[in-house]
Formats: sequence, structure tokens, C-alpha cells
Amino acid sequence: MKRGFYIGRFQPYHNGHQSVLEHIADYADEIIIGIGSAQLSHQIDNPFTAGERVLMITRSLVSLGCPFYVIPIEDIKRNALWVAHVRSMTPPFESCYSSNPLVMQLFKEAGITVQSPAMYERDTLSGTEIRRRILSGEPWENLVPPAGSRVLSEIDGTGRLRQIARED
Amino acid sequence: MKRGFYIGRFQPYHNGHQSVLEHIADYADEIIIGIGSAQLSHQIDNPFTAGERVLMITRSLVSLGCPFYVIPIEDIKRNALWVAHVRSMTPPFESCYSSNPLVMQLFKEAGITVQSPAMYERDTLSGTEIRRRILSGEPWENLVPPAGSRVLSEIDGTGRLRQIARED
Amino acid sequence: MKRGFYIGRFQPYHNGHQSVLEHIADYADEIIIGIGSAQLSHQIDNPFTAGERVLMITRSLVSLGCPFYVIPIEDIKRNALWVAHVRSMTPPFESCYSSNPLVMQLFKEAGITVQSPAMYERDTLSGTEIRRRILSGEPWENLVPPAGSRVLSEIDGTGRLRQIARED
Amino acid sequence: MKRGFYIGRFQPYHNGHQSVLEHIADYADEIIIGIGSAQLSHQIDNPFTAGERVLMITRSLVSLGCPFYVIPIEDIKRNALWVAHVRSMTPPFESCYSSNPLVMQLFKEAGITVQSPAMYERDTLSGTEIRRRILSGEPWENLVPPAGSRVLSEIDGTGRLRQIARED
Amino acid sequence: MKRGFYIGRFQPYHNGHQSVLEHIADYADEIIIGIGSAQLSHQIDNPFTAGERVLMITRSLVSLGCPFYVIPIEDIKRNALWVAHVRSMTPPFESCYSSNPLVMQLFKEAGITVQSPAMYERDTLSGTEIRRRILSGEPWENLVPPAGSRVLSEIDGTGRLRQIARED
Amino acid sequence: MKRGFYIGRFQPYHNGHQSVLEHIADYADEIIIGIGSAQLSHQIDNPFTAGERVLMITRSLVSLGCPFYVIPIEDIKRNALWVAHVRSMTPPFESCYSSNPLVMQLFKEAGITVQSPAMYERDTLSGTEIRRRILSGEPWENLVPPAGSRVLSEIDGTGRLRQIARED
Repeated sequence: MKRGFYIGRFQPYHNGHQSVLEHIADYADEIIIGIGSAQLSHQIDNPFTAGERVLMITRSLVSLGCPFYVIPIEDIKRNALWVAHVRSMTPPFESCYSSNPLVMQLFKEAGITVQSPAMYERDTLSGTEIRRRILSGEPWENLVPPAGSRVLSEIDGTGRLRQIARED
Repeated sequence: MKRGFYIGRFQPYHNGHQSVLEHIADYADEIIIGIGSAQLSHQIDNPFTAGERVLMITRSLVSLGCPFYVIPIEDIKRNALWVAHVRSMTPPFESCYSSNPLVMQLFKEAGITVQSPAMYERDTLSGTEIRRRILSGEPWENLVPPAGSRVLSEIDGTGRLRQIARED
Repeated sequence: MKRGFYIGRFQPYHNGHQSVLEHIADYADEIIIGIGSAQLSHQIDNPFTAGERVLMITRSLVSLGCPFYVIPIEDIKRNALWVAHVRSMTPPFESCYSSNPLVMQLFKEAGITVQSPAMYERDTLSGTEIRRRILSGEPWENLVPPAGSRVLSEIDGTGRLRQIARED
Repeated sequence: MKRGFYIGRFQPYHNGHQSVLEHIADYADEIIIGIGSAQLSHQIDNPFTAGERVLMITRSLVSLGCPFYVIPIEDIKRNALWVAHVRSMTPPFESCYSSNPLVMQLFKEAGITVQSPAMYERDTLSGTEIRRRILSGEPWENLVPPAGSRVLSEIDGTGRLRQIARED
Repeated sequence: MKRGFYIGRFQPYHNGHQSVLEHIADYADEIIIGIGSAQLSHQIDNPFTAGERVLMITRSLVSLGCPFYVIPIEDIKRNALWVAHVRSMTPPFESCYSSNPLVMQLFKEAGITVQSPAMYERDTLSGTEIRRRILSGEPWENLVPPAGSRVLSEIDGTGRLRQIARED
Repeated sequence: MKRGFYIGRFQPYHNGHQSVLEHIADYADEIIIGIGSAQLSHQIDNPFTAGERVLMITRSLVSLGCPFYVIPIEDIKRNALWVAHVRSMTPPFESCYSSNPLVMQLFKEAGITVQSPAMYERDTLSGTEIRRRILSGEPWENLVPPAGSRVLSEIDGTGRLRQIARED
């Protein structure tokens, strides 16, 4: 059993995340998707709750063809404890997929393999860009999986983001 | 879409939980399973990590026939905020299944329907009894789904429980 | 300006508290009433929220004849910091009225006068006894000020306490 | 009984807050004033303790003609739980008065009416401006109620702010 | 460099701790002494602050003949993170000396050697017994190193313990 | 017994800190060195763990000629409680040595003498500058005591800092 771990904030979940996960699915027997900063929501940089992000991810991956777990991970605010925190919240895993420098360092110091090959770095898309487009009224729906877009519509995610970004 | 919420500590997941979930599956379109006190482990009353509990539950429900989410829920230690905390960590749900008096009261005050009919109260089995049997060396495997028992074996859950229960 | 500080959990506010406060009102220019363990509610020993306790206290003291402040104080869970915590949440005060041994010791170590004369110890009534009576169906309304009793009625405080005290 | 809720950080309490509260007093039977970020003090943006702010507000409102509660509210750092947190610390209220976009969104999602009419937006005054004036030595006393100014003088609030703003 | 870790609550530091540390000094190049539950004080089971415990330990070990570090360790309240927490607060160490079953299990799961031979188990003395003697007025000074006893005298540790143990 | 308190984050410990401590050693009987923000590590501004900082400091001061304590101090995030927090974690002290404006204000409000004479302000060196040099590949070893430099080498501190500072 090769279980792989992938972490993100998914604010929102987008095609870049989807593409990375589809690649991981070729190598892993099971995938654990950790939703970072799970306790944050209703912020300009973190508009969606962990539960809303669980829904976006799960619905977008129905045809992934690889079993996966979606686990909210609250911030522990102590980097030296973060890997132990992640491992306590997830089924055991052997490798981590990430191109985030801090995540890579923390797992490396914990003796866990981190894979960050070029093919996984296709997440040139970013949540920052999508939130910017939503706020400026530019098209963004094509950057996220259709199922994720439907979730945002159901919870009026764009309305929430625009309201909290208003000037006082 | 009727989504139902079911909460437990699952220390460990047992046949009573399984039976309740199989009944809920007849009524709900999707089930959200909240793992309470997710941050606790390595205690006599809470021996297993949230991740280990995720694994026990997920493997035991592979043939449930109803989509489900397994979500670790850390304690918020403020009862008045607990329902809001649960809702922030989970996809939206309409009803809650519980026979725990505090859970029933908290959801009732939040205006959420709680269903606690007799047929769901078949969880006469208890984690307390299973932990007692593990410690005393009595048979317990028949009280948990086979898949859950295999997880406990893989992580040496009984060895851990017996060690932390030793006298100093 | 002689400001005095009085702390309690007020679960619920009762005639003993009322009597002590009426005595303090004879000596102080202003009274600060700290509601301890403000974050707790919906527990058998702490059934009411801080806000509900604010309401019970304020309504019961409308004719006290001495200005007073009612301040929720969340637990800090570090006794050595508790006096500094209290002082940060309250207007400056010169003396403390208490017969609780720990409160007396903490204020004494902080160099603050604690008054605990016999006349203030008339709180032989206790929240514990009142909660016991509510649960057993014995009369309790005569032990709390009428205004406090009306607040409990408005929020269905007895119903909540009885529900959360039920066996699972 | 129409109870209204008004939240601010009150660093310091100023004439804009006073004006808003006088307007609310025309419509509400009782007013609850929540002191946000109650746990913060001795920061350039948050120089005063919750207790000092309680004192400024209470003394400035002695002739308001409407009963009011002044309640310190510590940050909960989880927006999705904030309304539940506020409600646990305050007497029950039916409407909220605010022009802060996040506060408006959070109360709206909780199903609570938010009133933000133009007449309440007279808080063009800001704590930021007053703190800037204190630091630069410009006149600021005319921007706060006289009673609030006296409290700042009693606690040497300007001295504290100037000291903590010094370069290291 | 062989560095060894020893953990205790040291409420108070006594001859049993001293004896264990003198044995460890024969094997280790340096000793790290972790003061557990560092944030607790002024409780019947935890009467002394971390700083007071630092003083008792340091003064009692002046002639140990082995370099040592005394490090307060606040509780993390998540057993699965405790070893990572300890390691972040201490210089690197290779082995742990303990006969506490939970500490042994947590270090074992983290892959760290735990030594618990009979000769180290001479801590038949216990803080519980010493606190009981202080409260009952029985002799206790002979159970702690003279330097530790002097610290307790300087801070009036027995007076504090007796006061907080009084009936309300 | 004159005990003096000195606080810093020591990210990393450098010659400026060393110089200040050598001066304090002329006046104090014992020195307490508090390691601030002890819980932070693996950040660009806080790369090293508390334990690593304990090691750098202790090894650099072996020939100080004045007894000293090195105590990690976790952030309490409430300035009004910080002095009480520090005092609970440290042996009793009479004076504080600091030129940090906030530290000076907090100790002054607590009635503790703060000494900040020019001769102690020789810490024109800064951790910020050293971290900048490490990241840019400029020489930095001459700015820290040799023993501190060796610790950084043992833990590959520069490698860690460079990795976590990489672009994502």
C-alpha cells in the first residue's frame, strides 16, 4: 500500500490542484488530501470554510479512479510540530507531494520523502489569481472544475468574497 | 439532497456505530461522519489518533452504498460554539442523528433537527466496554467490523492501549 | 474612588451573591462583578452562558444603589497569570471581596487587599445546591432573586439543564 | 424588548461611536456594546486594555437614557464561529448595528438583521486618526467625549502609546 | 556527545529525582531536565511555578559534575505531538530516561530509545506524598535536597499550598 | 542576591547579545536569559527552535563567570499578561535589562526596574542583518560567537533558512 499526502488551502480548489492529483493517482494506491488552515474562512485570502472546501474537492474527484481521503487540518502555529500534527490527523502515509519550500523542509527533517518533480508543478494556476478575478468581475469559472464551480454557486461564494472585500 | 450528520469519538469504531450508519444510509443521500475529540490520542479513554479512526471507519464502510465524508473534529471546549464549529468543518447538512443528550440540546438550540429514534439506539455496544476487554485480555474482535480490527492490528493498537494503561 | 472586585461563576446567580453585593455596596463607590469561566455553558456544573449570567445579574441589581460593572472573564488556565488577566479586563480596582482560598492567595501574592469578613460569607447558598434542586424537581425559585428566576424562565434554563443531565 | 448589538474595538472610544450609540438609543430598548479584540493592549493599534475601554465607554454614556451593557469580547480567530461566540457572551439581541462588511456578512449568514443606514455611518472619525494625532502631538481631545479623555489621562494612555511606538 | 532527557513535574523536586539524575550523570555527557506542565501553579497537585521549580532543581544540582539544562515544557494537550514539542524546546538528545508508561510509549513510537532500568526506578518517593505531608504538618524536609527545601522556604511554598488547600 | 532578566529572540544569538550579557554579568549575581517566541521556528524571521537557541546561548557563555539560566518563553499573545507570564517561568528577579520600548513599558507598569543605559545598547548587530547575510551568501560567522556558529553548522541552520526562503 503506497499512500501519498498532498496539502493545500484550496481557496478555492482549482484545475491546477486537479491536475496534480490526477498525476499522483498514477503512482499512489491511495491519496490523502489535507485541507490546510481549516479553521479559517470569511477572509479575503481564505473565504471558504473547510466544509465547503471538502465539498468542492470531493465532488471534483468523483471519477479520479483512486481512493482518497479529504481531511481538514487546523493550523498548529508551531512549525516544528506541524508534521506530527498532520500525521495524527491522517492515515499513515509514506510520501508527500509538494513544491512548497517550507512543507518540503518540514517533511525532510521528519525523514519523510517529498516528491516535487516538474510534472507536479503544473499548479501555475493559483487561488490568489482566481480570487482576484472574482473580485474584479473577470471570468474565473474555466479555472476550476465544473463541480467546484457549482459548489461555489450553491453557497454564494462569490457574493461572500465580494462582501468581505468591500471598503468599510 | 438530504445530508445527515453523525458524530462519535470512535475509540474504537464498533458494530454499534456500523449498525447506526447502515440505518442512516436508508434515509440520507449522503452521510457526514464527524470524529469528535480528534486531537486526543494515547489516552486510556482515547487511545487512537484521528487518522487511525478515519482509517477504521472508511475501510469498514466500503460497501455502505451511500456516499459519506469522514471529518476529524477537534474539540472547541465551548459548548455554545460547538455547532458552529461542526458546521464550519463539514459540508452543509439538514439533520443530525444522535442520542447524546448534549449533542441533541446543542443542535436543538441551533434550530437543527435531531433524530434519535429507537432503531438508531442500537449502539448498546460501547467503546468503553471494548477498551476494557482489550485491557483485561477478553475477546473483543467480534464487537468491531473485521476491517476495523485489521487496522487496530496494523497499528498495534492493543499494544499501545495496554502500555499506556500500565501502572507507573 | 474605591472600586471593589467580586468574582463568581454565578451558575446561577442567587440570593447569597445578592446579599454579598448589597454589603459591598455599603463600602465601595463602584463594584466590578467578574463572571468567571465565562466561556463555559451547557455543562451540568456550568449550564448558562456568560450572556445569560450577565442578564440575571444586571436585572437583579437594578435597585442596588451603587454603580456596577458586569464583566465576563474567560478562564486563562494559568493561575499565575489570572490576576493580570482579571485586571486587563476590568476597570482599575483597589480591593477584592472573596472567601475563595485560591482567589485570596492569588490576589495576596499580587499585593492586592482581599476582604473576606464573616459578613460577606453569607453565601452558604450554593449554585451546586440550586442545580441539584432543579434536577430533582425540588423548589429552588426562592433561592434566587425574582429577576434572575425570570431570566431562567425566558431562556428555558431548567429545560436545558435537565436535558444535558439525562443519561445517554 | 428590542435589544441591539454594536461592536467596536474602541481604541479609543470617540465621538463617532458616541453619535452612533445615541442614534441607536432612539430605536432600541437596550443596547449591548461589544468591545472587540478584548485581549489586546499595549500595541500601537490596540493600546488600551479591555478594562480601560469599559471605563471610557461607561463614563461617556452616563446620560444616554437607554440601558446598556458593555461586554469585552475576546477574539476567537475563526470567523465562522464569531457570531456564536458573541451571542454566548451577551444577553439575547435581535438586531445588529454595523457598517463593517465582515460583521455584516457574518450576521447575515447567521440570519440576524444588520442595520447599516447612512445615519449610523457618521463614524468618519477613526481610532486610527486619533492614535496618529496622539503620536504626532496634534490636538485630539476634541474628538473624544470629555469623560473618555479623563480616563485616558488617569491611566496615562498617551504616555503608554508614545512609549510603545518608540523605535527600538 | 551523549545527551539524555529526563522529564518530571517536580512538584516539588525531591531526593528520588536527585538520585535518578545522579545515576544518569554516570552515563550521559549532558542531561536535559524537562519541567512538565510548566504552565501550571497554585493548584493542590501543582503548587509551584515553573520558575520556582527551575530554582529548586538548579540549586540542588550544583555539584552534579555533569552539564545540565533545565527547560520548562508547557503542556501541549495532544499526546501525538508531545515528543515533537519536547524536541523543539530542547537541545538534541539521543536517549530518554523514564519509567512513565505514556512517556515510554510516545518516545518509542517516535523511534527514540527509552531507558527504564530498575536502578533508575528509585523514585519511590513521590511529590504526592510530600504534598500530603506538608498539608498534614508531618515532616517532609528530609525527602528533598536541602537546597530545594531552602527555595520552598524563600517563596513560602508551604504557606501557599496550605492556603489553596483550604475549604472554601 | 541580585538577579537580572534579559530577553531576546536570539534568531540567532550574536555578538551583540554576548556583549550585553558580559556587561550585565558585572552587576548581577545571576542572570536569567529568556528566549522569546520560543514556540516559533522554521520561519524566515524565526528559523531556529527554542532548543537550538538554548544550545547556542549556553555554549557561548561557558566562560561568562556568572551563573545564568536559559529559559524558553512561549508567546502569550496578550501584552497585559506578559510580565506575569515571564515571572511564572523564571526564578524571581529584581531588575530587567532591555532597550525594547514595549518590554520597558510592560515592566514599568508592573513596577519592575528596567535598565537601559547606553552601554547595554551595543546590540547594533541584529538578527535581521545576520539572516539577510546568510540568505545572500555574505559572510556572517564573524558576527556570532564561535560556539554559536558551530551549533548552526551542526543543525545545518543555514541550509534550513535558505530552503524555507525559497520561492514556492
